[in-house]
Amino acid sequence: MDLVFDENDFFGCCGSARFAKEMALASPFVSLEDAISAARDIWFNKVDVNGWLEAFSAHPQIGGTHSSAPASGISAEWSKREQSTALATATNSSLQELSEWNARYRQKFGFVFLICASGRSTEEILAELKRRYPNRPLLEFENASQEQMKITELRLAKLFTTRATDSSPAVK
Amino acid sequence: MDLVFDENDFFGCCGSARFAKEMALASPFVSLEDAISAARDIWFNKVDVNGWLEAFSAHPQIGGTHSSAPASGISAEWSKREQSTALATATNSSLQELSEWNARYRQKFGFVFLICASGRSTEEILAELKRRYPNRPLLEFENASQEQMKITELRLAKLFTTRATDSSPAVK
Repeated sequence: MDLVFDENDFFGCCGSARFAKEMALASPFVSLEDAISAARDIWFNKVDVNGWLEAFSAHPQIGGTHSSAPASGISAEWSKREQSTALATATNSSLQELSEWNARYRQKFGFVFLICASGRSTEEILAELKRRYPNRPLLEFENASQEQMKITELRLAKLFTTRATDSSPAVK
Repeated sequence: MDLVFDENDFFGCCGSARFAKEMALASPFVSLEDAISAARDIWFNKVDVNGWLEAFSAHPQIGGTHSSAPASGISAEWSKREQSTALATATNSSLQELSEWNARYRQKFGFVFLICASGRSTEEILAELKRRYPNRPLLEFENASQEQMKITELRLAKLFTTRATDSSPAVK
Protein backbone atom coordinates (compact mmCIF):
# COMPACT_ATOMS: atom_id res chain seq x y z
CA MET A 1 0.00 0.00 0.00
CA ASP A 2 1.28 3.48 -0.90
CA LEU A 3 1.72 5.82 2.02
CA VAL A 4 0.40 9.33 1.46
CA PHE A 5 2.33 12.38 2.64
CA ASP A 6 1.75 16.08 2.11
CA GLU A 7 3.99 19.12 1.62
CA ASN A 8 4.18 19.75 5.35
CA ASP A 9 5.57 16.28 5.97
CA PHE A 10 8.31 16.86 3.42
CA PHE A 11 9.00 20.38 4.68
CA GLY A 12 9.79 18.84 8.06
CA CYS A 13 12.41 16.65 6.34
CA CYS A 14 14.03 19.55 4.47
CA GLY A 15 13.04 23.18 4.96
CA SER A 16 13.04 24.29 1.33
CA ALA A 17 9.53 25.17 0.09
CA ARG A 18 10.47 24.10 -3.43
CA PHE A 19 11.73 20.74 -2.17
CA ALA A 20 8.51 20.11 -0.23
CA LYS A 21 6.33 21.09 -3.18
CA GLU A 22 8.23 18.92 -5.68
CA MET A 23 8.18 15.94 -3.30
CA ALA A 24 4.43 16.27 -2.85
CA LEU A 25 4.03 16.39 -6.66
CA ALA A 26 6.24 13.30 -7.05
CA SER A 27 4.40 11.30 -4.36
CA PRO A 28 2.99 8.82 -3.55
CA PHE A 29 6.10 6.65 -3.43
CA VAL A 30 6.07 2.86 -3.60
CA SER A 31 8.93 2.58 -1.10
CA LEU A 32 11.35 4.57 1.03
CA GLU A 33 14.05 3.94 -1.60
CA ASP A 34 11.79 5.45 -4.23
CA ALA A 35 11.20 8.53 -2.04
CA ILE A 36 14.93 8.96 -1.34
CA SER A 37 15.76 8.68 -5.02
CA ALA A 38 13.21 11.41 -5.85
CA ALA A 39 14.47 13.54 -2.94
CA ARG A 40 18.07 13.37 -4.21
CA ASP A 41 17.07 14.36 -7.72
CA ILE A 42 14.95 17.26 -6.47
CA TRP A 43 17.51 18.51 -3.97
CA PHE A 44 20.56 18.42 -6.24
CA ASN A 45 18.97 19.19 -9.62
CA LYS A 46 15.88 21.30 -9.02
CA VAL A 47 16.23 23.27 -5.79
CA ASP A 48 18.32 26.37 -6.56
CA VAL A 49 20.99 27.88 -4.33
CA ASN A 50 18.46 30.17 -2.65
CA GLY A 51 16.44 27.07 -1.75
CA TRP A 52 19.55 25.48 -0.24
CA LEU A 53 20.10 28.56 1.93
CA GLU A 54 16.43 28.48 2.92
CA ALA A 55 16.75 24.84 4.02
CA PHE A 56 19.99 25.51 5.93
CA SER A 57 18.34 28.36 7.84
CA ALA A 58 15.64 25.97 9.14
CA HIS A 59 18.28 24.22 11.30
CA PRO A 60 19.16 25.26 14.82
CA GLN A 61 22.86 25.73 15.50
CA ILE A 62 24.39 22.42 16.64
CA GLY A 63 24.16 22.48 20.43
CA GLY A 64 21.61 25.29 20.23
CA THR A 65 17.84 25.14 19.98
CA HIS A 66 16.88 28.09 17.79
CA SER A 67 16.90 28.18 14.01
CA SER A 68 16.95 31.53 12.22
CA ALA A 69 13.75 30.55 10.41
CA PRO A 70 10.66 29.22 12.14
CA ALA A 71 11.03 25.44 11.88
CA SER A 72 8.01 23.22 11.93
CA GLY A 73 7.41 21.48 15.24
CA ILE A 74 8.45 18.11 13.86
CA SER A 75 11.68 19.52 12.43
CA ALA A 76 12.65 21.07 15.78
CA GLU A 77 11.82 17.81 17.56
CA TRP A 78 13.90 15.80 15.08
CA SER A 79 16.88 18.16 15.42
CA LYS A 80 16.82 17.53 19.15
CA ARG A 81 16.78 13.75 18.73
CA GLU A 82 19.49 13.83 16.05
CA GLN A 83 21.71 15.72 18.48
CA SER A 84 20.93 13.48 21.45
CA THR A 85 24.32 11.67 21.35
CA ALA A 86 26.14 14.99 21.10
CA LEU A 87 24.21 16.45 24.01
CA ALA A 88 24.66 13.32 26.15
CA THR A 89 28.45 13.45 25.64
CA ALA A 90 28.79 17.20 26.08
CA THR A 91 30.50 18.96 28.94
CA ASN A 92 29.97 22.65 29.69
CA SER A 93 33.35 23.53 28.26
CA SER A 94 32.91 21.49 25.08
CA LEU A 95 29.48 23.07 24.52
CA GLN A 96 31.05 26.48 25.03
CA GLU A 97 33.78 25.72 22.50
CA LEU A 98 31.23 24.36 20.02
CA SER A 99 29.17 27.50 20.41
CA GLU A 100 32.20 29.71 19.73
CA TRP A 101 33.24 27.75 16.65
CA ASN A 102 29.67 27.74 15.38
CA ALA A 103 29.62 31.53 15.57
CA ARG A 104 32.95 31.72 13.76
CA TYR A 105 31.69 29.35 11.05
CA ARG A 106 28.50 31.34 10.50
CA GLN A 107 30.50 34.57 10.37
CA LYS A 108 32.72 33.17 7.61
CA PHE A 109 30.16 31.26 5.53
CA GLY A 110 26.89 33.09 6.15
CA PHE A 111 24.93 29.97 7.16
CA VAL A 112 24.82 27.59 10.10
CA PHE A 113 27.34 24.69 10.39
CA LEU A 114 25.45 21.67 9.09
CA ILE A 115 26.33 18.10 9.96
CA CYS A 116 24.33 14.91 10.13
CA ALA A 117 24.75 14.62 13.91
CA SER A 118 23.03 11.27 14.52
CA GLY A 119 25.25 9.11 16.71
CA ARG A 120 28.11 11.63 16.83
CA SER A 121 29.67 12.94 20.01
CA THR A 122 30.30 16.62 20.67
CA GLU A 123 34.03 15.96 20.27
CA GLU A 124 33.54 14.45 16.81
CA ILE A 125 31.30 17.30 15.71
CA LEU A 126 33.76 19.90 16.95
CA ALA A 127 36.67 18.16 15.20
CA GLU A 128 34.69 18.10 11.95
CA LEU A 129 33.76 21.77 12.29
CA LYS A 130 37.43 22.71 12.76
CA ARG A 131 38.46 20.52 9.82
CA ARG A 132 35.91 22.13 7.50
CA TYR A 133 36.38 25.73 8.66
CA PRO A 134 39.41 26.56 6.41
CA ASN A 135 37.48 25.47 3.27
CA ARG A 136 36.54 27.83 0.49
CA PRO A 137 32.96 29.10 0.76
CA LEU A 138 31.84 27.20 -2.36
CA LEU A 139 33.21 23.87 -1.11
CA GLU A 140 31.59 24.38 2.27
CA PHE A 141 28.31 25.23 0.57
CA GLU A 142 28.52 21.88 -1.21
CA ASN A 143 29.48 20.03 1.99
CA ALA A 144 26.48 21.55 3.77
CA SER A 145 24.19 20.45 0.94
CA GLN A 146 25.51 16.87 1.23
CA GLU A 147 24.94 16.88 5.00
CA GLN A 148 21.43 18.28 4.47
CA MET A 149 20.72 15.37 2.11
CA LYS A 150 21.88 12.83 4.74
CA ILE A 151 19.62 14.47 7.32
CA THR A 152 16.73 14.47 4.85
CA GLU A 153 17.21 10.74 4.18
CA LEU A 154 17.13 9.90 7.89
CA ARG A 155 14.01 11.98 8.35
CA LEU A 156 12.27 10.40 5.36
CA ALA A 157 13.03 6.99 6.87
CA LYS A 158 11.47 8.11 10.16
CA LEU A 159 8.45 9.48 8.32
CA PHE A 160 7.92 6.17 6.55
CA THR A 161 8.39 4.10 9.71
CA THR A 162 6.03 6.27 11.74
CA ARG A 163 3.33 6.35 9.09
CA ALA A 164 3.58 2.61 8.34
CA THR A 165 3.10 1.89 12.07
CA ASP A 166 0.24 4.39 12.35
CA SER A 167 -1.57 2.91 9.38
CA SER A 168 -0.88 -0.75 10.14
CA PRO A 169 -4.16 -2.73 10.51
CA ALA A 170 -2.59 -4.61 13.48
CA VAL A 171 -2.53 -1.49 15.63
CA LYS A 172 -5.85 -0.03 14.54
CA MET B 1 53.49 55.63 -8.02
CA ASP B 2 50.69 53.76 -6.28
CA LEU B 3 47.20 54.53 -7.54
CA VAL B 4 44.65 55.08 -4.83
CA PHE B 5 41.13 53.65 -5.09
CA ASP B 6 38.25 53.59 -2.65
CA GLU B 7 35.44 51.12 -1.86
CA ASN B 8 33.14 52.71 -4.43
CA ASP B 9 35.65 52.11 -7.20
CA PHE B 10 35.88 48.42 -6.29
CA PHE B 11 32.12 48.10 -5.85
CA GLY B 12 31.77 49.21 -9.46
CA CYS B 13 34.04 46.28 -10.46
CA CYS B 14 32.12 43.70 -8.42
CA GLY B 15 28.88 44.46 -6.57
CA SER B 16 29.61 42.63 -3.33
CA ALA B 17 29.98 45.01 -0.36
CA ARG B 18 32.40 42.57 1.29
CA PHE B 19 34.54 42.40 -1.84
CA ALA B 20 34.71 46.20 -2.10
CA LYS B 21 35.57 46.58 1.58
CA GLU B 22 38.31 43.93 1.51
CA MET B 23 39.82 45.37 -1.67
CA ALA B 24 39.93 48.82 -0.10
CA LEU B 25 41.65 47.33 2.95
CA ALA B 26 44.16 45.48 0.74
CA SER B 27 44.97 48.58 -1.36
CA PRO B 28 46.99 50.42 -2.51
CA PHE B 29 48.32 47.95 -5.08
CA VAL B 30 51.69 48.25 -6.77
CA SER B 31 50.30 47.00 -10.09
CA LEU B 32 47.20 45.74 -11.85
CA GLU B 33 48.51 42.18 -11.43
CA ASP B 34 48.79 42.74 -7.70
CA ALA B 35 45.18 44.02 -7.57
CA ILE B 36 43.87 41.08 -9.62
CA SER B 37 45.67 38.61 -7.39
CA ALA B 38 44.10 40.18 -4.29
CA ALA B 39 40.71 40.29 -6.00
CA ARG B 40 40.83 36.56 -6.82
CA ASP B 41 41.75 35.66 -3.26
CA ILE B 42 39.00 37.85 -1.80
CA TRP B 43 36.33 36.71 -4.26
CA PHE B 44 36.97 32.95 -4.00
CA ASN B 45 38.11 32.65 -0.38
CA LYS B 46 36.52 35.44 1.62
CA VAL B 47 33.25 36.51 0.00
CA ASP B 48 30.57 34.04 1.10
CA VAL B 49 27.77 32.64 -1.07
CA ASN B 50 25.42 35.45 -0.03
CA GLY B 51 28.04 37.92 -1.26
CA TRP B 52 28.22 36.09 -4.59
CA LEU B 53 24.44 36.37 -4.98
CA GLU B 54 24.65 40.05 -4.07
CA ALA B 55 27.27 40.63 -6.78
CA PHE B 56 25.26 38.67 -9.38
CA SER B 57 22.16 40.76 -8.65
CA ALA B 58 24.07 43.95 -9.53
CA HIS B 59 24.17 42.87 -13.20
CA PRO B 60 21.49 43.71 -15.74
CA GLN B 61 20.17 40.76 -17.72
CA ILE B 62 22.28 40.29 -20.88
CA GLY B 63 20.51 42.34 -23.58
CA GLY B 64 18.56 44.20 -20.89
CA THR B 65 19.43 47.36 -19.03
CA HIS B 66 18.03 46.90 -15.55
CA SER B 67 19.69 45.03 -12.70
CA SER B 68 17.60 43.84 -9.76
CA ALA B 69 19.83 45.85 -7.42
CA PRO B 70 20.68 49.49 -7.94
CA ALA B 71 24.03 49.40 -9.75
CA SER B 72 26.44 52.26 -9.44
CA GLY B 73 26.56 54.54 -12.48
CA ILE B 74 29.95 53.26 -13.53
CA SER B 75 28.86 49.61 -13.27
CA ALA B 76 25.80 50.24 -15.48
CA GLU B 77 27.94 52.11 -17.98
CA TRP B 78 30.50 49.27 -18.05
CA SER B 79 27.79 46.64 -18.55
CA LYS B 80 26.62 48.56 -21.61
CA ARG B 81 30.12 48.72 -23.08
CA GLU B 82 30.83 45.05 -22.31
CA GLN B 83 27.69 44.11 -24.23
CA SER B 84 28.42 46.43 -27.17
CA THR B 85 29.46 43.59 -29.52
CA ALA B 86 26.38 41.58 -28.58
CA LEU B 87 24.09 44.55 -29.16
CA ALA B 88 25.75 45.46 -32.47
CA THR B 89 25.24 41.91 -33.78
CA ALA B 90 21.71 41.47 -32.42
CA THR B 91 18.56 41.23 -34.50
CA ASN B 92 15.10 41.73 -33.02
CA SER B 93 14.43 38.00 -33.09
CA SER B 94 17.76 37.03 -31.51
CA LEU B 95 17.21 39.61 -28.76
CA GLN B 96 13.74 38.19 -28.22
CA GLU B 97 15.12 34.64 -27.97
CA LEU B 98 17.88 35.79 -25.61
CA SER B 99 15.31 37.50 -23.42
CA GLU B 100 13.18 34.32 -23.24
CA TRP B 101 16.15 32.10 -22.39
CA ASN B 102 17.34 34.60 -19.80
CA ALA B 103 13.96 34.39 -18.08
CA ARG B 104 14.07 30.59 -18.20
CA TYR B 105 17.59 30.61 -16.74
CA ARG B 106 16.66 32.95 -13.90
CA GLN B 107 13.58 30.85 -13.16
CA LYS B 108 15.70 27.70 -12.82
CA PHE B 109 18.75 29.09 -11.01
CA GLY B 110 17.42 32.07 -9.06
CA PHE B 111 19.98 34.55 -10.41
CA VAL B 112 20.73 36.29 -13.71
CA PHE B 113 22.69 34.50 -16.49
CA LEU B 114 26.24 35.80 -16.12
CA ILE B 115 28.79 35.77 -18.88
CA CYS B 116 31.82 37.87 -19.63
CA ALA B 117 30.26 39.35 -22.78
CA SER B 118 33.16 41.45 -24.05
CA GLY B 119 33.67 40.77 -27.74
CA ARG B 120 30.94 38.10 -27.94
CA SER B 121 28.08 38.17 -30.40
CA THR B 122 24.46 37.62 -29.40
CA GLU B 123 24.61 34.23 -31.15
CA GLU B 124 27.60 33.13 -29.08
CA ILE B 125 26.01 34.29 -25.85
CA LEU B 126 22.76 32.50 -26.65
CA ALA B 127 24.61 29.29 -27.53
CA GLU B 128 26.49 29.45 -24.23
CA LEU B 129 23.29 30.09 -22.28
CA LYS B 130 21.63 27.02 -23.86
CA ARG B 131 24.74 24.92 -23.22
CA ARG B 132 24.83 25.87 -19.53
CA TYR B 133 21.09 25.70 -18.88
CA PRO B 134 20.91 21.90 -18.20
CA ASN B 135 23.62 22.16 -15.50
CA ARG B 136 23.01 21.43 -11.85
CA PRO B 137 22.37 24.57 -9.77
CA LEU B 138 25.66 24.20 -7.86
CA LEU B 139 27.76 23.92 -11.04
CA GLU B 140 26.01 26.91 -12.57
CA PHE B 141 26.60 28.87 -9.35
CA GLU B 142 30.31 28.13 -9.75
CA ASN B 143 30.28 29.01 -13.47
CA ALA B 144 28.63 32.33 -12.67
CA SER B 145 31.27 33.07 -10.04
CA GLN B 146 34.05 32.40 -12.58
CA GLU B 147 32.39 34.70 -15.13
CA GLN B 148 31.98 37.36 -12.44
CA MET B 149 35.73 37.13 -11.76
CA LYS B 150 36.54 37.61 -15.48
CA ILE B 151 34.28 40.67 -15.57
CA THR B 152 35.92 42.00 -12.39
CA GLU B 153 39.40 41.59 -13.90
CA LEU B 154 38.42 43.52 -17.05
CA ARG B 155 36.91 46.28 -14.94
CA LEU B 156 39.95 46.50 -12.68
CA ALA B 157 42.09 46.86 -15.80
CA LYS B 158 39.85 49.72 -17.00
CA LEU B 159 40.01 51.34 -13.57
CA PHE B 160 43.82 51.24 -13.60
CA THR B 161 44.05 52.54 -17.17
CA THR B 162 41.60 55.36 -16.56
CA ARG B 163 43.20 56.44 -13.29
CA ALA B 164 46.75 56.22 -14.67
CA THR B 165 45.72 58.46 -17.57
CA ASP B 166 43.87 60.88 -15.28
CA SER B 167 46.82 61.19 -12.94
CA SER B 168 49.54 61.27 -15.58
CA PRO B 169 51.57 64.53 -15.38
CA ALA B 170 51.55 64.69 -19.20
CA VAL B 171 47.81 65.26 -19.33
CA LYS B 172 47.49 67.54 -16.35
